[in-house]
Amino acid sequence: MDKRYSKIGGDLKMKKNIFYAQSGGVTPVINATAAGLIDALSKNKSFFGKLLVGKNGIAGALNEELIDISKENKSELKKLIHTPGGAFGSCRIKLKDPVKNKKEFQRILDVFKAHNIGYFFYNGGGDSQDTTLKISNYCKANGYNVNCIGLPKTIDNDLPITDNCPGFGSVAKYIAVSTYEASLDVASMANSSTKVFILEVMGRHAGWLAASAGVIKNGINTPPHIILFPEVVFDQKKFLARVKDTVRKCGYCVIVASEGIKDNKNNFIAASDSKDSFGHAHLGGVAPKLADMITNKLKHKVHWAVSDYLQRAARHVASDVDVKQAYAIGYKALSFAKSQINGVMLTINKKNTSTYQWDVGTAKLSDVANIEKILPKSFITEDKFGITSKCKKYIENLIKGENYPPYKNGLPEYAKLKHPLVKKNLKKFN
Amino acid sequence: MDKRYSKIGGDLKMKKNIFYAQSGGVTPVINATAAGLIDALSKNKSFFGKLLVGKNGIAGALNEELIDISKENKSELKKLIHTPGGAFGSCRIKLKDPVKNKKEFQRILDVFKAHNIGYFFYNGGGDSQDTTLKISNYCKANGYNVNCIGLPKTIDNDLPITDNCPGFGSVAKYIAVSTYEASLDVASMANSSTKVFILEVMGRHAGWLAASAGVIKNGINTPPHIILFPEVVFDQKKFLARVKDTVRKCGYCVIVASEGIKDNKNNFIAASDSKDSFGHAHLGGVAPKLADMITNKLKHKVHWAVSDYLQRAARHVASDVDVKQAYAIGYKALSFAKSQINGVMLTINKKNTSTYQWDVGTAKLSDVANIEKILPKSFITEDKFGITSKCKKYIENLIKGENYPPYKNGLPEYAKLKHPLVKKNLKKFN
Repeated sequence: MDKRYSKIGGDLKMKKNIFYAQSGGVTPVINATAAGLIDALSKNKSFFGKLLVGKNGIAGALNEELIDISKENKSELKKLIHTPGGAFGSCRIKLKDPVKNKKEFQRILDVFKAHNIGYFFYNGGGDSQDTTLKISNYCKANGYNVNCIGLPKTIDNDLPITDNCPGFGSVAKYIAVSTYEASLDVASMANSSTKVFILEVMGRHAGWLAASAGVIKNGINTPPHIILFPEVVFDQKKFLARVKDTVRKCGYCVIVASEGIKDNKNNFIAASDSKDSFGHAHLGGVAPKLADMITNKLKHKVHWAVSDYLQRAARHVASDVDVKQAYAIGYKALSFAKSQINGVMLTINKKNTSTYQWDVGTAKLSDVANIEKILPKSFITEDKFGITSKCKKYIENLIKGENYPPYKNGLPEYAKLKHPLVKKNLKKFN
Repeated sequence: MDKRYSKIGGDLKMKKNIFYAQSGGVTPVINATAAGLIDALSKNKSFFGKLLVGKNGIAGALNEELIDISKENKSELKKLIHTPGGAFGSCRIKLKDPVKNKKEFQRILDVFKAHNIGYFFYNGGGDSQDTTLKISNYCKANGYNVNCIGLPKTIDNDLPITDNCPGFGSVAKYIAVSTYEASLDVASMANSSTKVFILEVMGRHAGWLAASAGVIKNGINTPPHIILFPEVVFDQKKFLARVKDTVRKCGYCVIVASEGIKDNKNNFIAASDSKDSFGHAHLGGVAPKLADMITNKLKHKVHWAVSDYLQRAARHVASDVDVKQAYAIGYKALSFAKSQINGVMLTINKKNTSTYQWDVGTAKLSDVANIEKILPKSFITEDKFGITSKCKKYIENLIKGENYPPYKNGLPEYAKLKHPLVKKNLKKFN
C-alpha cells in the first residue's frame, strides 16, 4: 500500500502529517515530551503521516521552517528523553489578535495546508494554550480540519485544571537539593563567617518554585528559614526582624526568594533604575537587593546565588516522576489525536489513591488559556514565610525518583540535532 | 590489654589521640576525607587512640570543643563520604603571629596536652597549611611531640606542588555540566528572546573554576564562547566586541566569568559602591555588572546566574575521581602519621601513565604555605577568552565518573551529626 495512505473504516484516506512545536521558556524535560511523541508515532505509522517540527516554535510555521524528524540521526533522537532545553528551538512570540489582524493566522493555515497537517501539538504554558485555541478556532472558521492539542509544559507550574505541569517537578527537585546543599555549607561556616544565604529562584507571579525549597524543612529551626512568595506582599521590616531572630536562634539563616516579589505599592523588589526599550524596569536580581538590606541593617555577612537558567536546564538532577509525565504527555497525545479530539490541553490527573498515582486526561483549551494558577492560601503558612504540610506533600510527590542522563568522559550525553528542513512550498512570509 | 595502650616494638606505650579539623571554605567532598580517616582508624585501633574533631575548625581547639567521633551515630558517619559542607563545622580564623602573640598557639598546645593529642590533621587550603606549619613549629619549639599533617582541600585548586586539590574536580564538573545545560537553554530561546547568558563562578585570584566550563567546548563557535579569568586584565572594549561578534556569528553567546576579574587599575569589576565595616568594597556580583554593560551597549537581552554556594556544595553531581581522591587523602593520612612523618601536606601525584592514574604523596608544609597556584599561561588561549587543549585534558581527568549520593523520597540522604563533645579539662579561653 502507498505509504501516504491509511485504511480507516474500510476507506483509503491520505494520511495527515503532524506539526509539533515547542513554545515559551524551556524546561529540563520538554524534549521528553517530544521523545514520547516520536515513540508513539513509530507504533502508529499506518495511521499518521510525517512528524514535522517547527524550528523555533511557532516561528517555524510562520517561516515555513519545518524540521523533518525522519531525517534526523536516530541515535541522537534517542537522547531527547534526557536532553534539557528545547532541542528544536523555542520562541517567545505573541501572535496578533486574529480578529484585528488575521495575517499570521492565515499564514499558519496556509502552511498547514501546504504540508498536509492534520494534527497540531503545541508544547507550552498559558500563553501557548491561548495560541493553540486561536489557531484551532481560525482553522475551523475557515473550514480546515486540524486537531489542535495543547501539551502542557512550564516550570512555573501555573496552568489550571492539570494537577501539575511537566517541567515543574525537576526544577523543584533541583531547588530542593540545591537549597539543602547550600544550607549545609552555610551551617558549617556560620560560626566565623557567612551568617545568611539567599537563593533567588524563578517565578514572577506564582510561588511554586520558591515553595519547593520547603520540602527539605524538617523542624521549626531548620532551613529554609524564610521563603518569599510573589503571592505575599514583601514587608521589609517583618523580613529583617525574622532574619535577625533566625540568626540569633539558629546561628544562620537560609532564605529562598521568588524573583517576582513586590512591595505594597506593587513594585518589584528586583526592579533596577534602568529600563528596557519598552520602558519596563529591568529586574536586577532580588537576591542582591535582599543581601544589601541585610548587610546594611543587620551587619551580617551574606552570600547569595541566582540560579536563573541553571535551574530551568538542570536535567542532571531531574525528577523521575517528572520525566515520566512529560514523556506520557507526548506519547498519549497521539491516542487522543487518533480519536479526533480537538481544542483540548492534556492534563496530569492525580488519582484518588493512598500512594501517588496519575494518568493523562484532557481539559478544554478555553478553560485553560490565559489563566494562572498561583499558590493556594492553604499552601502557605500563617506567618507567610513557609509552606504547609499540604503543600509539602503535593511537591514531594513530584520530585520522587532520580532519572540521570548517561555520561561520557565526565559529561552528560545530550542530543545534537541537525534540524533538516522539508522543502518549502510557499513564498516567504513578512 | 588496656585499650589506652599500644605495643610498639615490644614496648607498651600510651596511645596518642588524633585531632582533626576542617578549615576555610568547604567543598562537596571535604567530608569524604573525614570518612577516609575514620575508616583507616577502624583498622588501626591498636595503634591510635581516639579521633577528636574540632567543632568549627581550629576554633574547636581554642574553645576546647572536641567532638568525640566514637559517640556519633555510626550510620550517620557512614554518610559522610557523600555529604557536602563541613559536617563538623569549618572556620575562617586567621591565627595571630606566634612570635608577636603566642597566646593562641600556647592554648592549642595546652589543649593538645590536655587531650593527649599525638597527631594533628588540618584539612584546608593555603592559609590552613600555613597554620599547620606554625602549630608544628610551635609544638616542636616547646618540646611537645605531635605529628602535624596538612590535608589538602580547596575548590579553588590553587595549592602548589599537588597536581590538583580535592574539592576542585566536583565543582569543575558542576560548572561544566551547568554551563552545558544553560547553553542548550539559551540556544533554544535565542531566536526570539535571550541572546546572552552569563554564569559567574568562584575564583578571586585563580581561574581554575572558570576554566572548567571550557571542557564542554567542541568547536570554534560552540559554548562557552567567552571565559573571563582573574589572571587576565578585563578589557571592556575587547569583551563587548567579542560578545557582539559571537551573537552575530552564532546567534547567541555564553559567558563564564570568575568573580575575581579586575580592570587595568586592579579594581574588581564586581566592586559595588557600598563598603563593609573594614572599608573594603562589597563585591556585588560580576554577572550583573557584565549584564548591564551588554544591555546598555549592545541592546541584547541578557540572562545571568551566580552559582555561589550552590557550586561549592553540589555533592549531587560530584566527580567520582574527586570523591576517591578526597577519601584517599584521609585514609592515607594515618599511614603517613604512623611512620611519624611531620610538617608535610599530603599531595595528589599524577602518575606518568597514558591513562590517568594517581597516588598520594607528600610536600613540605614550608614549600606549600601561602603560595597560590594560578592558571599557567599555557592553559589560556592566545585570545585570552578560552582554555587550551592542555588545560582541557588536565580538567577532563578530574571530572571523570559520577558518584551520586543515595536518595530517599526524592532528596539526598546527607549525614546529620550530633557533635557530642568530650569533657573539658581546661579553663575557658578568651
